[in-house]
Amino acid sequence: MSEQAALRPGRGRRPAAAVRQAILAAATELLFEHGLAAVTFEKVAARAGASKMTLYKWWPSPGALALDGYFTAVEQTLAFPDTGDIERDLTSQLHAFVRLLTERPAGRVIAELVGAAQTDPDLAAAIAQRYTRPRRALAVDRLTRAQRAGQVRAELDPEVVVDQLWGACYHRLLLPDLPIDAGFADALVRNLITGIRP
Amino acid sequence: MSEQAALRPGRGRRPAAAVRQAILAAATELLFEHGLAAVTFEKVAARAGASKMTLYKWWPSPGALALDGYFTAVEQTLAFPDTGDIERDLTSQLHAFVRLLTERPAGRVIAELVGAAQTDPDLAAAIAQRYTRPRRALAVDRLTRAQRAGQVRAELDPEVVVDQLWGACYHRLLLPDLPIDAGFADALVRNLITGIRP
Repeated sequence: MSEQAALRPGRGRRPAAAVRQAILAAATELLFEHGLAAVTFEKVAARAGASKMTLYKWWPSPGALALDGYFTAVEQTLAFPDTGDIERDLTSQLHAFVRLLTERPAGRVIAELVGAAQTDPDLAAAIAQRYTRPRRALAVDRLTRAQRAGQVRAELDPEVVVDQLWGACYHRLLLPDLPIDAGFADALVRNLITGIRP
Repeated sequence: MSEQAALRPGRGRRPAAAVRQAILAAATELLFEHGLAAVTFEKVAARAGASKMTLYKWWPSPGALALDGYFTAVEQTLAFPDTGDIERDLTSQLHAFVRLLTERPAGRVIAELVGAAQTDPDLAAAIAQRYTRPRRALAVDRLTRAQRAGQVRAELDPEVVVDQLWGACYHRLLLPDLPIDAGFADALVRNLITGIRP
């Protein structure tokens, strides 16, 4: 049991799920307030009232913990709608996504996480496992349903569409030069829906 | 004159253009052999037989110098063809680009540069000015000529197409999960050319 719960002096044990939630909340606060470098097991443990041992058992690195906190915080924002109209659903999900990317500090936080991952293989693995793959899967599921409904060409690879919609937004976030806004999101969907031929 | 030339013991002065070329070559070698952290003004100056003062005068930071070296090295590879057929030209340029991104060490070098730029505003500015904007301009020029030739819809924003072709490749480079190859490049162009409708 001591592996799954944390002691808070004078307040006894909390269930593991509550400890996990408190740790993620503390990591996200530190990440949003002070950036990735501020997310250390020491600081998160102190803020969450958890033992450092618990953090070591549950997360391979502070970067993976920061990423988990970030993902949990934005999960609701990035829910994927299914109204039955693929163009409408892609557009509304992308509108939510571009709002998130241009909000402070969420947009800078994800840029910093992806940036650090380029020279941190553990963080890169955590991002792939906990963020990129699950996010891709949600979009691919929705596109596959649209294929079954006859709204999207059957021979299309939904994974490539993910790169051309969300990937295009990451491009403007990570190699910034032009605005990320609702008009950009609309143009992304429109270009794919209609093609670029006259 | 001393600002524009560098001394090499016993060999007298070289023209500024030759010094610049030697410095860029030395920076690129260090970058490709040992990564971004190895590109210091000290090491580049020693390897190029140039004075550190010259480097300080010409580049705002070692990151900007590394970026200049990288850009000069890959410039030829990334030349933009104009055969008059936009689909063919986009495809062949993207084939060259995905080859570059998957080559060692070029792909890791650009990932590391973009990664470091997320927390280094000087490097971010250098990438925007020396890499992102000129690369965008070449693609936008080609797409604008295709619009004039009636091969691309007149109301299309060529900048958005850049994000959906090259940006999609950067997405797979920086948030790696799926392969970057010629088949991916073909699918990127095909999706935009034909749209995703059945």
